[in-house]
Amino acid sequence: MTTTPRTGTSSTAAGSLYGPVAGDLPRISEALQSIASNVEFPFLQRMLENALAGTGKMMRPAIALLGGRLGAYDLDRLVPLAASVELLHTATLVHDDVIDAAQERRGEPTPNALFGNAASVMLGDYMFAHAADFIAQTDNTQVVRAFARTLMMMAKGELRQDMTVFEYSEDVQRYLDRITGKTASLFSTAAEGGAMVAGAPADQVEAMRAYGLHLGIAFQIVDDILDFTGDPAVMGKPVGSDLAGGTLTLPAILYMQRKPDDNPVKRAFEGVRRKANIDRAIREIVESDLLDESMQTALRFGEEARSALRTLPAGEVRETLDGILDYVFSRRS
Amino acid sequence: MTTTPRTGTSSTAAGSLYGPVAGDLPRISEALQSIASNVEFPFLQRMLENALAGTGKMMRPAIALLGGRLGAYDLDRLVPLAASVELLHTATLVHDDVIDAAQERRGEPTPNALFGNAASVMLGDYMFAHAADFIAQTDNTQVVRAFARTLMMMAKGELRQDMTVFEYSEDVQRYLDRITGKTASLFSTAAEGGAMVAGAPADQVEAMRAYGLHLGIAFQIVDDILDFTGDPAVMGKPVGSDLAGGTLTLPAILYMQRKPDDNPVKRAFEGVRRKANIDRAIREIVESDLLDESMQTALRFGEEARSALRTLPAGEVRETLDGILDYVFSRRS
Repeated sequence: MTTTPRTGTSSTAAGSLYGPVAGDLPRISEALQSIASNVEFPFLQRMLENALAGTGKMMRPAIALLGGRLGAYDLDRLVPLAASVELLHTATLVHDDVIDAAQERRGEPTPNALFGNAASVMLGDYMFAHAADFIAQTDNTQVVRAFARTLMMMAKGELRQDMTVFEYSEDVQRYLDRITGKTASLFSTAAEGGAMVAGAPADQVEAMRAYGLHLGIAFQIVDDILDFTGDPAVMGKPVGSDLAGGTLTLPAILYMQRKPDDNPVKRAFEGVRRKANIDRAIREIVESDLLDESMQTALRFGEEARSALRTLPAGEVRETLDGILDYVFSRRS
Repeated sequence: MTTTPRTGTSSTAAGSLYGPVAGDLPRISEALQSIASNVEFPFLQRMLENALAGTGKMMRPAIALLGGRLGAYDLDRLVPLAASVELLHTATLVHDDVIDAAQERRGEPTPNALFGNAASVMLGDYMFAHAADFIAQTDNTQVVRAFARTLMMMAKGELRQDMTVFEYSEDVQRYLDRITGKTASLFSTAAEGGAMVAGAPADQVEAMRAYGLHLGIAFQIVDDILDFTGDPAVMGKPVGSDLAGGTLTLPAILYMQRKPDDNPVKRAFEGVRRKANIDRAIREIVESDLLDESMQTALRFGEEARSALRTLPAGEVRETLDGILDYVFSRRS
C-alpha cells in the first residue's frame, strides 16, 4: 500500500461529494493519463489523450473506492479497479458514438468525428484491453469475472437499444432491462468490486451491489429526463435528442401509453412528417406531468438504493454514498 | 477434471495434426456453441451462431491444449482457456471486417455484410467480453494479464495496419512488428497460457511462448504469400487483394526495395492509374523470386520456433508441435 498523495480536492465540490475517497481520485486520473503517455505510437497516443481528456465527475471510480473503504483499503489494488471502471465506461462511449454516428458529446467532437470510424473501433478495443489489464491487477479472479459479465450485459444493452430504434412497441419493463445492462450494471460492479477487492463481509458486498444497481437505474432515468429538460448549451445536444434519434426513453414510453391512438411518435416512426411529429411529441412531453412521473420512478429506485445502504455500518462511507444518491437527483446537466 | 469424450476425430486430418489433444477439440467447439445457445436475445443469438459457424482449423486452441500437456492437464481450466483464444481470434476478425468494410471472408458474407456495422461492433464487443469471462475461469490472474496484454498488442497491430494503408514507406522491420501484434501475439499467448494454466516448469512456459511467437510470425508471412499464390476460388478473394487494398506485406515491401525508382506501387498509392499499376506490380511479384525470398524469411522464423521446442521433453507433445510447424509451411489456402 502506497501513501496517498493528498491534493487540495477535498475542499472542492468533488471533495464534499466523495468524502473520504476524494483525495484519492487524482490517483485514478494519473493511472488513466499514464495509459496515453506509455503508448509509443503517436496516433494512438493522440486518440487516447483525446478520449480520456473529458473524464468527468468520476462518479463510478469514487463509488468503487467507497466500496473499498468497507474493508482493507489497499490502493495498489483499488486504484487499478477504479481506473478500469472509468476506462470501461469511456471505451463504451467511444464505441457507442461510432454506432450512433454521433458527432459531438457534451459539446466536444467525438473520436469518430476526429479520427474516423475504423480508428475509433480500434481505439475502443485498445481501451477495453487496457481495462482488462487493470482488472487483472486486482489479482482477484472473482472480480475479473464480475467485470467480464458486466461487459457482456453492457454490450447486450447497447445492442438492444440499437435494435429497437424507431420501434414503438417498447414498454417500461424492456426499457428498465435495457438501462440495467447499458448503465446500471457497471455502477453495480464498481460498487461491488471495490468491496470485494477490500475483502468486505459478504452482506456488505451484496449491499453495495444492490446500491450500485439501483443508483445506476435512477441515474439513467434522470439522464433520460434531462434529455427533455436540460439546457441544450450545457448538454451539447438539442432538447429531445433521444426521441429524435428514434430511442424511446421512459418519458416517451409513458407518453405512448397515454395516447395509444392519436400518437405523433408512432406516426413519426412510421415515417410520416417525422420532424413535425417529433417536435410536437417533445413539446407535449415537456408540457405534461410525464417528466414528474418519470422522476417518481427514478426516486423509487433511489429508495431501493438507500434501503440497501442500511446494511452498511453507520459512518462517513454510508453518508457519502447517501449523498451521491442525493446528487444524482439534483443534477441539472 | 472431467472425462474426455473421445469422438472419432483422431482418425481425421485434425487428429493426425493435433495428436494427443485432437480428441479434446470438440469440447472447445461445444464451449463456443454454448455461447450462442445461452443468449436469450434472438438477434444476438443469430449473429453469434453465424460468427462462430465458420470456426476453422482450431490451430490456436490446439496449441493451447498442447501447452497444457506439459503439466497438469485439467480440462476444466484448459477448455475455457482454449475457447477464449479462439473467441478472441474470431472477435478480432469481426471488428477487422467492420474496419476494412470487407463483404466476404473465405467466400462467406461477413457479419457487417449481414447485420450492418453498428451491430457488428457490438457483436465483437460481446465476444471480447465472453472471452474475458472464459479467461477468468482459468482462475489464474497471470494468465488474465497475459491475455489483456495480447489484446492490447492486437489492437495496436491492427491500428498500425490501418494507419499505414497506401503508405509506401513501410519497411520489413515495421511489417514484422505489425504482424507480431496482429497475429503472433495471440499464438504466443495461447501456447504460453496453456503451459501456465497447467503449471508447467518456467523454462517450458518460456519455450512455448517463443514457439508460439515465431510460429505466429511464420504463419502470417505464409498467409501474406498465399495472398499472391493461393487459388482465388479457395481463398475467396482475388490474387493480390492486400496490395490492391493498400496494405504492403512482405513480398510487396521487398519489391518496393528492389525497385526504388521505377515503381508501380508507389505510383498507384499516389493515385496514378491505380488499377493498372497495381495489376502490373502483382504480376511482377508473382513472376519474380520475391515469393521464394519471403518464404525463406518465414522459414527462418520457423527455425526459431523449432529451436524453442528443444527445451521441451522429447515425446508426443513436442512432435505434434513440430508437425504443426510443418503444416504451416505446407498449407495452400
